[in-house]
Amino acid sequence: MTVTSPATAGLFSGMFARGGAAAQVSDVAWLAAMLDVESALAAAQAGIGLVPAEVPPAVAAACRPELYDLAGLGAEAARSGNPVIGLVAALRTRIEPGLRRFVHYGATSQDINDTAAMLVARRALAPVLADLSACAGACARLASEYRGSVMAGRTVGQHAVPVTFGLKAAGWLSALDRSRTELARVPLPAQYGGAAGTLSVLGERGHEVPPLLAAELGLAEPVVPWHTDRTPVARLACALGTVAGTLGKIANDVKLLAQTEVAEVAEPTGPGRGTSSAMPHKRNPVGSMSVLACVQRVPGLVASLLGGMIAEHERAAGPWQAEWETLGELLRLTGSAARWLREVLEGMTVDTARMRANLDATRGLLMAEQVVVRLGGTPQDRRLVDAACARAAAGGLTLREVLLADPGVSLTAEEVDAALDPAGALGSALTFVDRALAAHRNLAGPGR
Amino acid sequence: MTVTSPATAGLFSGMFARGGAAAQVSDVAWLAAMLDVESALAAAQAGIGLVPAEVPPAVAAACRPELYDLAGLGAEAARSGNPVIGLVAALRTRIEPGLRRFVHYGATSQDINDTAAMLVARRALAPVLADLSACAGACARLASEYRGSVMAGRTVGQHAVPVTFGLKAAGWLSALDRSRTELARVPLPAQYGGAAGTLSVLGERGHEVPPLLAAELGLAEPVVPWHTDRTPVARLACALGTVAGTLGKIANDVKLLAQTEVAEVAEPTGPGRGTSSAMPHKRNPVGSMSVLACVQRVPGLVASLLGGMIAEHERAAGPWQAEWETLGELLRLTGSAARWLREVLEGMTVDTARMRANLDATRGLLMAEQVVVRLGGTPQDRRLVDAACARAAAGGLTLREVLLADPGVSLTAEEVDAALDPAGALGSALTFVDRALAAHRNLAGPGR
Amino acid sequence: MTVTSPATAGLFSGMFARGGAAAQVSDVAWLAAMLDVESALAAAQAGIGLVPAEVPPAVAAACRPELYDLAGLGAEAARSGNPVIGLVAALRTRIEPGLRRFVHYGATSQDINDTAAMLVARRALAPVLADLSACAGACARLASEYRGSVMAGRTVGQHAVPVTFGLKAAGWLSALDRSRTELARVPLPAQYGGAAGTLSVLGERGHEVPPLLAAELGLAEPVVPWHTDRTPVARLACALGTVAGTLGKIANDVKLLAQTEVAEVAEPTGPGRGTSSAMPHKRNPVGSMSVLACVQRVPGLVASLLGGMIAEHERAAGPWQAEWETLGELLRLTGSAARWLREVLEGMTVDTARMRANLDATRGLLMAEQVVVRLGGTPQDRRLVDAACARAAAGGLTLREVLLADPGVSLTAEEVDAALDPAGALGSALTFVDRALAAHRNLAGPGR
Amino acid sequence: MTVTSPATAGLFSGMFARGGAAAQVSDVAWLAAMLDVESALAAAQAGIGLVPAEVPPAVAAACRPELYDLAGLGAEAARSGNPVIGLVAALRTRIEPGLRRFVHYGATSQDINDTAAMLVARRALAPVLADLSACAGACARLASEYRGSVMAGRTVGQHAVPVTFGLKAAGWLSALDRSRTELARVPLPAQYGGAAGTLSVLGERGHEVPPLLAAELGLAEPVVPWHTDRTPVARLACALGTVAGTLGKIANDVKLLAQTEVAEVAEPTGPGRGTSSAMPHKRNPVGSMSVLACVQRVPGLVASLLGGMIAEHERAAGPWQAEWETLGELLRLTGSAARWLREVLEGMTVDTARMRANLDATRGLLMAEQVVVRLGGTPQDRRLVDAACARAAAGGLTLREVLLADPGVSLTAEEVDAALDPAGALGSALTFVDRALAAHRNLAGPGR
Repeated sequence: MTVTSPATAGLFSGMFARGGAAAQVSDVAWLAAMLDVESALAAAQAGIGLVPAEVPPAVAAACRPELYDLAGLGAEAARSGNPVIGLVAALRTRIEPGLRRFVHYGATSQDINDTAAMLVARRALAPVLADLSACAGACARLASEYRGSVMAGRTVGQHAVPVTFGLKAAGWLSALDRSRTELARVPLPAQYGGAAGTLSVLGERGHEVPPLLAAELGLAEPVVPWHTDRTPVARLACALGTVAGTLGKIANDVKLLAQTEVAEVAEPTGPGRGTSSAMPHKRNPVGSMSVLACVQRVPGLVASLLGGMIAEHERAAGPWQAEWETLGELLRLTGSAARWLREVLEGMTVDTARMRANLDATRGLLMAEQVVVRLGGTPQDRRLVDAACARAAAGGLTLREVLLADPGVSLTAEEVDAALDPAGALGSALTFVDRALAAHRNLAGPGR
Repeated sequence: MTVTSPATAGLFSGMFARGGAAAQVSDVAWLAAMLDVESALAAAQAGIGLVPAEVPPAVAAACRPELYDLAGLGAEAARSGNPVIGLVAALRTRIEPGLRRFVHYGATSQDINDTAAMLVARRALAPVLADLSACAGACARLASEYRGSVMAGRTVGQHAVPVTFGLKAAGWLSALDRSRTELARVPLPAQYGGAAGTLSVLGERGHEVPPLLAAELGLAEPVVPWHTDRTPVARLACALGTVAGTLGKIANDVKLLAQTEVAEVAEPTGPGRGTSSAMPHKRNPVGSMSVLACVQRVPGLVASLLGGMIAEHERAAGPWQAEWETLGELLRLTGSAARWLREVLEGMTVDTARMRANLDATRGLLMAEQVVVRLGGTPQDRRLVDAACARAAAGGLTLREVLLADPGVSLTAEEVDAALDPAGALGSALTFVDRALAAHRNLAGPGR
Repeated sequence: MTVTSPATAGLFSGMFARGGAAAQVSDVAWLAAMLDVESALAAAQAGIGLVPAEVPPAVAAACRPELYDLAGLGAEAARSGNPVIGLVAALRTRIEPGLRRFVHYGATSQDINDTAAMLVARRALAPVLADLSACAGACARLASEYRGSVMAGRTVGQHAVPVTFGLKAAGWLSALDRSRTELARVPLPAQYGGAAGTLSVLGERGHEVPPLLAAELGLAEPVVPWHTDRTPVARLACALGTVAGTLGKIANDVKLLAQTEVAEVAEPTGPGRGTSSAMPHKRNPVGSMSVLACVQRVPGLVASLLGGMIAEHERAAGPWQAEWETLGELLRLTGSAARWLREVLEGMTVDTARMRANLDATRGLLMAEQVVVRLGGTPQDRRLVDAACARAAAGGLTLREVLLADPGVSLTAEEVDAALDPAGALGSALTFVDRALAAHRNLAGPGR
Repeated sequence: MTVTSPATAGLFSGMFARGGAAAQVSDVAWLAAMLDVESALAAAQAGIGLVPAEVPPAVAAACRPELYDLAGLGAEAARSGNPVIGLVAALRTRIEPGLRRFVHYGATSQDINDTAAMLVARRALAPVLADLSACAGACARLASEYRGSVMAGRTVGQHAVPVTFGLKAAGWLSALDRSRTELARVPLPAQYGGAAGTLSVLGERGHEVPPLLAAELGLAEPVVPWHTDRTPVARLACALGTVAGTLGKIANDVKLLAQTEVAEVAEPTGPGRGTSSAMPHKRNPVGSMSVLACVQRVPGLVASLLGGMIAEHERAAGPWQAEWETLGELLRLTGSAARWLREVLEGMTVDTARMRANLDATRGLLMAEQVVVRLGGTPQDRRLVDAACARAAAGGLTLREVLLADPGVSLTAEEVDAALDPAGALGSALTFVDRALAAHRNLAGPGR
C-alpha cells in the first residue's frame, strides 16, 4: 500500500519522518489498517459461519480508505471518544441494509483500534527493520575493513589506550544486532473481545474468532482479550526505545569523531547537505545530528506508554487513547533515526591517517599501560610510569624520551619501542571483532 | 491569522487537537511565524539604519505563507538540518537582487527558528489561557453555587468525612489559578545572535537589534543570545506540564464522580456524545477521558525537553532540533485538555441529592470523627467510636442505632443527632470556599 | 547472603522497600557483589594459567564485605568517579605484596561495576520473580474460584455488560504471566574488557576470560565488551517497567473495586493496617495504594536509563554512572510492588453478593446489548432499545418494565427475562478463563 | 541542625550526595522536619487558644529526633501507609495523658508530611542556592577575566566563527542566573486541612491555623488546603529540573573542552582525583562527569512528579506517596550537581594559548564569514568564498593563501589580513559579556 500523508511532507518531516515508517503511521495508514481489520473480521467470522458468506466480499469492497472522509471521522471521534464508531457508521452505509448488522459484528471500537495499531506497527516495522539490518551490515563492513586500523580508545572523553576502528564498529554491530533482534521478536497480537472481553454478542462461539482474525492479518494469537493488559504495547515501545538508544550511541560517536579537532570520520556529503546559512566553510554532520534529534524524544514517549499501562477495569478512559499518537511517534522517530544512521554509516568517510595522528598527539602517553605491563605490572612499576608520564606532560617531551632517560626504567630501547607501539597493544581487539562478525553472520536476518 | 492544518483535522485530532492551540502549532503556523520573524528583523534593522529603508516593505510583501511550498521546505530541511535555510533561499528569490543580502541579515537559522518558536508559543497560549480562564470561571461558579452542598469527602478511595461540592470546586479553582498564572508569566524572549552568538556580521552594532526585534514581535528582550541556554523553553514546558497536571486532577475527579456507582456528576451530553458502539445504554464521560488522554502524554514530553537542555557549545546538534515538534505537542495537548475540561465544567450536571444519598449510604460511619470530637476527643473516645463503627458495619446497623444502644456513650439522642449531621461538621469548608473565590477575584485575569 | 541496610529500614522503606529485592540492592549488597566479581575473576584467570594458583584463595579470603569501610569507599569514589578504584586499593592491601598485581588483573573499574550490577540484579530478581509467581498463583486461584461469579464489566468508568470476577482475574493472570516471563528471560551478561575493550594487559589471551568469568558467576556470556552498549541494562529496565505497569493495573482495579460505593473486594486487614490518624471508621486499601505509589515512580526511571544509552566512545562520562542507583531503585520499587500485590491478592476478600447487587443497581440497563441481540441485532433494534433505556433511566423504571410495556418490542416475558439474565450473557467469558488458566499451567515457572 | 545519614555516606554518595542538600533530605532530616511541624502546630494553635498553653512546651520537649526509632517508624508506616501515624502515636506516649489529644490536633497525616516536605525542601535548597550562587560567581569571574580571549565558536560540533571564552562563560552565567532565580522564588506553602480539607475537628476556627503555622515555620501561606493540588510540588520539581539542565549544559561544555584533542580547559586536580585504575596517564574530568551523572537522572524524576499530580478526590492513594523519596532525590541530585560544578568552575584551568591554536588549526576557514562580509556580503561573494574554502581544505592551504591567489577577490593583503583576524570579528561579543555581568550584578542575590 502506498500512502502519502502530511506526516511525511511537513516542515520538520525531513528530519523526523525519514525512512519508510512515517508513511505507515500516517492517518491514512491508520484508516487503511482499521478497514483491513473490519474486512478480516468479516472473513474470519464467515469462515466459521458466524456471519453470512455474502458479508466478507461486501465489506471488503467497502473497505477502501479513499471512500472515507478522514477529517469528518476525526471530528466525529471527538464526540464518541474514538474514530471507530464513526467509521463503522460510515462503513455500514455502504453495505446493503440486510447485512449491515454483520459489519463490526460483536466488536467494540477498541478491538478494531488495537488490532489496527498492531497492523500499523507491523507495517511500520518492516522498513525500520530493513534499515536496521542495513545499519548492521554497514557496521560489519566497517568492522571488517578497519579491523586493525589503530586509533585512540577514549574513555571519559580522554585518550585511554589504543583500539581499532574495527573494534569500535564491532561494538556498534553487536549492540545493533542485540536490539534489532529483540524488536523483530515482539509479538503483535490481534484484539477481539467485544464490549468487555466476553464477546457476549456472539453467544458461546466468540472465542473461536481471535485466532482466525490473527491468522487473516498475520498477527499473533492472543491468549485472552487484552483491552486493559497493555503488555504488548509496552513491550513494543520498550524494544523501540532500546533500538533508539543504540542508534543514538552510534550517532553520538560519529558526531564526536567528526568534531573539527578530531576529524577521524566525516559524514557523506551531497548538494546542500550539511551547509550553514551563515558559515560557508561549515560541513555539519547532519545525519548524526538528526539521529540524535529523533532519539532524544524517545525515552519520554516510552515512559508515557509505560505510565499508561495502568488501565482501569475492562476498558480504560484516558491511558489507552493516549497510546495512539504516541505509538505512531515512536515508530516514526525510531524509523527516521534508523534511516538517517543507515545513510551515515553507508556513506561515511574514515580517515585512518588522522586516527593515527591523533593517537600520536599525546606523544606516547596513551601507551603508558603497556609500559607498566612490560615493566612487570607491579604497583611500583605503575608509580614509575606515572611519574614518567607527568614529566613528559610537563616538559612537552615524548614518553619515549623520558623513559629512555630514566635510570629506574629497566627496559632497552627496543623494549621501549615495542611497548610504545600501538599495534602491539591491541590485546584481544581483533578477536573481539571476529567474534562480533561471527555472531552477526549466525544471526538469522531478523524480519517480520 | 486563520490557519487550517492536518494537525487540526486528523483521525485523532478530535481528541488531541481540540481548542485553538492546535491550529497555532501547525506547520502553516510555524511557517507564518518564521516569515513574521524575517519581516520583523528587517524592520528592526532598518529602524537603526543597518539595512536600507526599502528592505522592510520588500521583505514584508514576500513574507506571506501561501507563497511557499511547505513540503518542499521540509524536504530541503533534511539536507541542511533545519527548515530555515531553504526558506531564506526561497524568500530571497522574491526580493530584488540588490536587496537580497539584507534578508535574514546577520542571522543564523536558529535565530529565526527560536524566535518563531516563541511566537508560535505566544499565539498558541492565547486560546489556552482563555480556556483556562473559562475553566476557572466555571469552577468559581460551581464553588459558589454548591458552597454548602454536602457530599462525602473521599480519601484513599474511601469515604472519610463530609465536605461540600463547593469546597471540591474551590480546590480545583485554586489549583487552576495557581498554575495558569504561572503559565501566563513565562517570558518568551526573541533570539538573535548570529552564527555563534556574536552577531559578527553586523560589526559592533548587532547588540542593538535584539531589543528592537523583541519589541516588533511583542516578545521578551533577551539578556544575551540563548542558543544553548534553553531555560526559556524549559520554563515554558514546565508551566505547561503543571497546568496539564492540574487539568488531569480535575478530570480524574469528574471521571470518578461520574462512575455508575457514584453518579454524582454527569458530563454534558449531545448528539452522539459519549455513546458506545456496542452498548446502547452507555453515556461515557468523553470529556474527562479526553483530558486524561491528553495529559497522560505531557510529563514524558516535558522530560524530553528538560533532557535536551544539555546543548553543547554555541549551538547544539540534536537536542535543540528535538524541541520543535515536542514543544508543539505540549502546546497542542495542553490546549486540547483545557478546551475539553472547559466544556466539561461549563456543562456539568451536579446531582446534590445523589451526593447526599451516597454520604448516607454508610449509615453514619462517615460522621465517626465528629462523634469522637463530641465525646471529648480522647483516645478512649476514639476506641469507643471505633468499636461502635465496627458493630454498625458488622450488623448492618446505623451508627446512630449503635451509639444510642451503647451505655458507654455519654451523649443524648439530640447530641448524637447533632454529631451525625454532616452539615454541622463542615469545619472551615465554607470559609475556604470563600477564600478561594476571593483570591480568584483578586487575580488579575492572566493574559498575554 | 543476608544483608541489612538502611535501604530496608528507613522512614519510607515500609512502603518502598517491601519484599526481598531491597536488601539485594543495598550498598552492602553492591559491595558484596563487587567482591564476588573480583574473586571470580581471579578464579577464572587462574583456571587458564593467567594468574598464579595462589591468587584465587588469597583473593577469596579478602573478599568479605565486612572487612571494608563502606563510607570510606564512597568518599574515595568521589575522587576517582567510581567506587571500584578505592575498593581495589583496599583489597590489595589484604593480599601479600607479590600477588597484589594479580588482583583485578587486566580489569577496568567498569568491568567490576557492570558485572556486579548484573549480579545484584540477578540476586534481586529472585525474590521479585518469586513474588510475581505468587501473584500469578493467587490470580489463578481467583480466576478458578470466581470463574462464573457475575459482576458488572466496566468501561470508561461506566457499567457496560456483565463479566465474571474470574474473567477479570484471568486478565490479570495473563498480563502477569506475559510480563514476568519476559523479565525472567532477560540476559544478564558478565563484563570484562579492560581499559577500552581490548584487554590489552593480558596480551592475546584476554578474550578467553569473559566466558569463564560468566560461568563462575552464573551470568550470561557476552559477545564483546559492552561498556558503551547498554542494551543489557535497557532490556532489564524495560522488563521491570512492563512488570511494574502490570502490577499497577491490577492494584488500580483493586483500589477502584474497594471504593466505598463499589465495595466488591476488600484488602486483607491486620492490626493497625489501613487505619487513619483522623478517621476511626476508615479501612484504607494500603496494599494497592502502596503498589501504585511504587509503580508511579518506575516509568521515569526507565526513561532515565534509556536516555543514558547514549554512551560516548569506549567508556562514558555521566550516563553510565547514572545507572547505578537508578537500576537499584527500579529493582527495589518493582520488587516492593510485587510483594505488596502478592499480599493483597493472597488475602483479598471478594463479595460476590455485592457484585451482583451492583450489577442490578442499574435496573437492567447493563443488559441492553443482550436485548438488542435477542431482538435481532439490527440498527432499528438498537434504536428501540436505546429509547427503552432512556425511558427506564428517566422514569426510574427497570428495563424489564419498560420493555414489557413497549408494544414495539416483539419479545415474550420469558424472552425478556432470558435476555436480562447476566448469567446468560457471558459469551466466551468462561472459555477465556479456562484459556488463561491453561496457559498459566503450561508456563514453565519462570525462575533464574 | 546537623544530621548524618547513610544517604550521605553510601557507596555511591560521593558522586550523588555531594554538597549540603543530601543531609537535609535524609531520613533523620525528614523525621526532624515532621517533629518540627508537630511542634509548630501546637504553638500556632496555642497562640489562638485552640489548645492549652501547656501543650507547646510539652510537645516541643518531645520533638527531638533522637527520641524515636526510625526503623520502627518505617515498619509501622507499612501498615498505615505513611510514617506519621506511628510517629504521632510514639510522640503521644511522651506527653502527659491529659494533653495527648492536643498533639497533632485536628491534623491528618498528610498535613504533617506535606509541611515537613516543604521544610525539608527549604532546608535542602539553602546549600543548593549557595552553591548555585558560587557557580554564578565563578562564571562571572571567568566572563570578566576572559572577556576578550579568542577561541573557536563551535556549532553542531564544528568550528563556526570566533567567540571569546568570556562570552561562553557569560552564556553560562545568564542561564544560571535565570534558573536559580526561579528556584529561589518557588513558594513552599504549609499544609493544614485535616481529614478532607475542612478542618472539621476544630469547629469553625480551623482556617485561622494555616497562616500561623506557616509563620511559625517560615513557609508560605496556603490559600486553601492543597492535599490534591500538587502544583507546589510540581513547581519545585520543575525549577530543580531547569537548574539541573543548566548545570548539565555547562558540565557538558567543560567535558567537551577538556577532551584530549581540544584541551582548552582542565578540571582542578588533587590527590587521586580523576585517576584511572588501568591507565596511569589519565586525568579524567571527574567533576563534569559527576554533574552529568547527577542530572541525567533528573528529567525522569520530574516527569514522575508531574504524572503524580493526578491525585484523586480529597487525598490520593499512590501518587502522593510517590512524591516523598522522589522529591528528596531531586533535591539531592540537583544539589550534588551544583556542588560538583562549583568545584569545577572555581578550580578550572583555562589554556588561552590552546584556544588560539585550535582556532588557527583550520587555517583560516573559521574566518570565512568575515571575508564574505568584507567582500560585500552578496550571494556571489559567498559563492566565491565557498570555493576558496573548498580549495584551501582540499589543498591543505591557508585561506589567506587561497584568497591572495584568487584574482576574483577584490581585497588587498591588508584587507585580507584584517578579515582573517579573529579579534576583529567578535561583533557584539564583548558587549554581550558586559550585559550578562551587569544583569548578574543587578540580581538581588537569590536566597531563601
